[in-house]
Amino acid sequence: MVTATGNLQYFLDPRSVAIIGASTNPSNPGGRVLKYFKRSFGGAVYPVNARNSVVQDLPAFPSILEVPESPDLVIVAVPAEHAVGAVRDCARRGVKAVTVFTAGFAEASEEGRRQQDELARIARESGMRITGPNSLGYINVSAGVYGTFTTAAEHTPPGGPIAIVAQSGGFGSMLFSVGLQIGLGVGFLCSTGNECDVNVPELIEHMVERRDVHVILAFSEGIRDPEALLRAAVKARELGKAIVYCKAGRSEVGARAALSHSAAVVGSDEVVDAVFEQYGILRANGMDDLLDWARVLSCSSPPRGNRVALVTASGGGGVLVADTAAELGLEMPAFAGEERARISAILPEFGSAANPVDLTAQVQSNPDLFGEVLRTVAESASVDILTIFLGALDPIADELIERIDHVRNQVDKPIVTMWGGGSKRYKTALNERGVPTYDDHVRALRAVSALVRAHTGNKRTAEVEVVVDKQRQSTAASLLGEADGRVLREDAGKQLLALYGLPVTRHEPVGSVDEAAVAASRIGYPVAIKVLSADLAHLSDVGGLRLALQDEAALRRAFVEMLEEVARRAPRARVERVLVESMAEPGIELICGMKRDSSFGPMVTVGLGGVMVEILGEVQLRRAPLTHEEALEALRALCSGRLTKSSRGLDPLAQQQVADLLVRLGQLAVEQPDVTEVDCNPVIVGRRPTVVDALVVKDA
Amino acid sequence: MVTATGNLQYFLDPRSVAIIGASTNPSNPGGRVLKYFKRSFGGAVYPVNARNSVVQDLPAFPSILEVPESPDLVIVAVPAEHAVGAVRDCARRGVKAVTVFTAGFAEASEEGRRQQDELARIARESGMRITGPNSLGYINVSAGVYGTFTTAAEHTPPGGPIAIVAQSGGFGSMLFSVGLQIGLGVGFLCSTGNECDVNVPELIEHMVERRDVHVILAFSEGIRDPEALLRAAVKARELGKAIVYCKAGRSEVGARAALSHSAAVVGSDEVVDAVFEQYGILRANGMDDLLDWARVLSCSSPPRGNRVALVTASGGGGVLVADTAAELGLEMPAFAGEERARISAILPEFGSAANPVDLTAQVQSNPDLFGEVLRTVAESASVDILTIFLGALDPIADELIERIDHVRNQVDKPIVTMWGGGSKRYKTALNERGVPTYDDHVRALRAVSALVRAHTGNKRTAEVEVVVDKQRQSTAASLLGEADGRVLREDAGKQLLALYGLPVTRHEPVGSVDEAAVAASRIGYPVAIKVLSADLAHLSDVGGLRLALQDEAALRRAFVEMLEEVARRAPRARVERVLVESMAEPGIELICGMKRDSSFGPMVTVGLGGVMVEILGEVQLRRAPLTHEEALEALRALCSGRLTKSSRGLDPLAQQQVADLLVRLGQLAVEQPDVTEVDCNPVIVGRRPTVVDALVVKDA
Repeated sequence: MVTATGNLQYFLDPRSVAIIGASTNPSNPGGRVLKYFKRSFGGAVYPVNARNSVVQDLPAFPSILEVPESPDLVIVAVPAEHAVGAVRDCARRGVKAVTVFTAGFAEASEEGRRQQDELARIARESGMRITGPNSLGYINVSAGVYGTFTTAAEHTPPGGPIAIVAQSGGFGSMLFSVGLQIGLGVGFLCSTGNECDVNVPELIEHMVERRDVHVILAFSEGIRDPEALLRAAVKARELGKAIVYCKAGRSEVGARAALSHSAAVVGSDEVVDAVFEQYGILRANGMDDLLDWARVLSCSSPPRGNRVALVTASGGGGVLVADTAAELGLEMPAFAGEERARISAILPEFGSAANPVDLTAQVQSNPDLFGEVLRTVAESASVDILTIFLGALDPIADELIERIDHVRNQVDKPIVTMWGGGSKRYKTALNERGVPTYDDHVRALRAVSALVRAHTGNKRTAEVEVVVDKQRQSTAASLLGEADGRVLREDAGKQLLALYGLPVTRHEPVGSVDEAAVAASRIGYPVAIKVLSADLAHLSDVGGLRLALQDEAALRRAFVEMLEEVARRAPRARVERVLVESMAEPGIELICGMKRDSSFGPMVTVGLGGVMVEILGEVQLRRAPLTHEEALEALRALCSGRLTKSSRGLDPLAQQQVADLLVRLGQLAVEQPDVTEVDCNPVIVGRRPTVVDALVVKDA
Repeated sequence: MVTATGNLQYFLDPRSVAIIGASTNPSNPGGRVLKYFKRSFGGAVYPVNARNSVVQDLPAFPSILEVPESPDLVIVAVPAEHAVGAVRDCARRGVKAVTVFTAGFAEASEEGRRQQDELARIARESGMRITGPNSLGYINVSAGVYGTFTTAAEHTPPGGPIAIVAQSGGFGSMLFSVGLQIGLGVGFLCSTGNECDVNVPELIEHMVERRDVHVILAFSEGIRDPEALLRAAVKARELGKAIVYCKAGRSEVGARAALSHSAAVVGSDEVVDAVFEQYGILRANGMDDLLDWARVLSCSSPPRGNRVALVTASGGGGVLVADTAAELGLEMPAFAGEERARISAILPEFGSAANPVDLTAQVQSNPDLFGEVLRTVAESASVDILTIFLGALDPIADELIERIDHVRNQVDKPIVTMWGGGSKRYKTALNERGVPTYDDHVRALRAVSALVRAHTGNKRTAEVEVVVDKQRQSTAASLLGEADGRVLREDAGKQLLALYGLPVTRHEPVGSVDEAAVAASRIGYPVAIKVLSADLAHLSDVGGLRLALQDEAALRRAFVEMLEEVARRAPRARVERVLVESMAEPGIELICGMKRDSSFGPMVTVGLGGVMVEILGEVQLRRAPLTHEEALEALRALCSGRLTKSSRGLDPLAQQQVADLLVRLGQLAVEQPDVTEVDCNPVIVGRRPTVVDALVVKDA
């Protein structure tokens, strides 16, 4: 299988394999991996062992250079002091791919870091791909490739379309073995370890391209190749595949642990959340999420929307499911009119035909009724996903399973069941029929939510194209060039924003009270004035700001008073000029801005602004360039939607205009790579948004 | 066992039992419950059956009136049309307690509702306790009492200190059977059904009082007897017991489902959250939470604090645990100095001695090292709880378990393990040794967090006492009496608040501009003026407000302009007076208030105020009367702690003063039951809080 992701197929589909450090003892890594290859692999296997000519009944070679052919894949399982030499020999021998099991590199010491850099250099110069060091290796079940030393591979599983790609071998192999225990179709395991060359995002991209993979479960601390991850996400969306990513290192303590143990680069977590959201990557908190979601993603057809129906044998269970669905943003439309009448007609006396549809305990005595209700509800045009809450119903379990299976065959919609009280064999039976079954209703609904998010909503199926306006780009660049220091003076910052079409206040810098009066008459009263000084960060703290001046008399008085107050309270600050500005109409104060993330590049931010901004901490981010729709979504995500839905919030026209402003900030970020930061706070939004204060920072 | 909770012991510890509707067919409810009693119960059992003189080999009686003794407990399992008559006979016969299995009452129809009211009346008048109708009954494992028809009781479990109290029989028996499947020590199951008499809170209180119960798992939709629940919570805290409560009906859809299926009264969910928090009741989302938390609560000694140490065999696992711990507010202190050196000295070459303590995969070859690290970490004075992350380590599982058990015996601190990759038998072995073991790290840490919350923090171990100030009470009452309508005019509202010591603005109502000038000179400039009118809700919408008037000239001009504008914009509003007020110094705008919840009574609220209050939706509630410490906690919970911790937030003195204000609002709520609502918005908090606007609503 040839893919766009350079030569990674040799790790998963090699035709021939050599093991440097192949051991006669199958409980050592180098012995275990040989045992696995002998057991399951169809191609040639060459043990390399300096001391023995036969290892586990196979002829062994003293060096990779003496192996009769150039193997596609080589496993290196020798002590750290010999590993780099062995890899160098592989490159000389023309090997395609090397997996280094050996630990004791960058995670252990400075000397190890240097050795690892040497491995990276070999990969770069030879084109040979290297996984590890400190890697647990790869498994491709259907190809019989077990290039790993995890004991999780002692049993050969049935395989399937789920691929696990993990930086941490320990976590990856735990996922693999638990996945098999619970009957998931896991077909692949890859552990990248210290990532001197091959990294998790690149492998995700490879997995998305493979026809035999449908769901990718990823785990890492840092994200080494963000561009590859975003390419993979866009392709996955296009192909209807799903990426579930458990990205660790959220917290400060987590990051501390990450840094100390594998030198991973941990980015700002809010950025990761935002980018995953924007690109449709599902973020998992841990093992349960990864495996629960893989279950439903690997066996359900994509739902058309987020409307969930519940048929329940327990009224209490019904209420719980409704609560959790609401919390997760899943709709539970109430059945009405004719539909409701139709369900009512089938239901037992005490049941409820709303949604949840409550069958009461009478379901126990009437499985046919159960089947009929299921079918009617599943066929409803207002239902995208059918969920079923079953309690302790083992006595009629076989009959219930048969009815559920029947509906699944008749109606092409995902069906998910919650069956905390059921025996394991019944739940297994449902899972095997493609009806994901969970004990806990919260886990079931989190999985349903993942399924919905994987397939619906406005996620990227292609990267956003940017048309660069060369003329504007160069005008803006010269404006930036003129500025001394990294922070643009406010008038220059606003000029830059105005070039990109942002609605800034009308403003004129002036040098005297008379100039101020002339400027104000041009701008129109009421006006505000503020001192321009590179020495002052917070103008209001020193009285360097006067608002709502209604006429020339007020302006003149305020001008003099302001300069006096600043001179008194900040005697050392040099006041360069005074800025005369139009007043914004009253409205809601937002903060809009841009910052550059070390992993994902320019991020546009929008949040609640004003002086409370740090306390509120209510901000959304989106990667630039962003679409108008993405900008609107960011706005709608603020304050749990209340900023756009509340009657005291932004009206629809204002929302459109703020979204437009954010798109323009994104355009600026892309066209002006020297601008490192933009902070418009407040942007006052009445009928329309106005940028009142602006801070623009450029590269040193 | 005699307890304060009236006669509930007869449901769980009866000496004799009769079953009305005892059936020869053990798959009917009335047959199944007889089968269970025959199997497990030591006391007398009397079947009542109109048609048969022998039922399941026991002599049967045609009516409860003919049973030779008055049984402690009677089970009613006859059709709805006979149920009320049977219960009436029980009362006549002097029965202590009746459980009604029969369904078809309030949950089914209006006629059913009337029948249920009749049952309630019988209970009230006779003093006989009635559980149900629509109840699944009771189980007390150690007493051999299986007064239930759930098939979950087919097997007799070993019992233990965990009690399940559920309104929904379906959910309760699911919990019971899953709890037994996973080896929890569940000793009790109670299902209250429609709660015509006995309800969930009352049973919780009974369970808290029982010496043989340590953890109570509760499930209900409404909360029928809030006072009993709060008494139970206070006692549980005092006795070191824990209540875990899954309260359904959070969402609108959930409430809709609740109303339609069991007519439960569903209260405002934020109030439930707040009261549970205040009284130390742990709120669970579903089955996993209930059972996971019961595991750790039933077998761990109370931790002294929230400081968690992690020993991990997987670096990746370590980072995940650190992330989740931070999210849940658990501390993971980094080891430093001598302690760190001591751990480092034991650790393998590549390990990390910070916290998480990373043993790397080398733990596989050295269980002794593992044990030594565990002991050193567990003994650390900066650790309250030891957690252990294990991956796929089955080959050395027995040795690991032995080391963990050894440390558990040596160190009196809770130990919790995460062992996703382990085989079931190993996990069971750990659980049986009192070391709770979870597959998923998120579930493990949620359980640890529950354990910490159950035993630490400033929760109520006694109700807050209120000293009523009779003089103030009557002064305030006459002030309330003078007001027309339900809404107090602002000056009267502020007078009331001032009586309770709340820091309101200085204010004087005036009838003319000259009076305003005199008042302002008494109050001191700058002042604000606002119109007083029962017809105007939002003054700023009609220009009925002028702020920051610096001198008499400005005051006089503003007075005239304001009245003109109001006359123009709200021509029909009657302006009664104008209020002249002092200006508050600038600061953070809060909203402080009080409302009465239909279940839990007076609730004091505090949140971010100002015009954005609905959009922000950032409010905390606490039940009144509240302590100063509880008020502070409410403040600290706002904006994830940023309001009190951020440098731009409230300083410590201001926090104390706001807390004092909230305590006083609570006092007002208790002394003035006629005040239904108070809304102070904004309370502007600079160096100290000032109530700027106040709305007081009294009973009709």
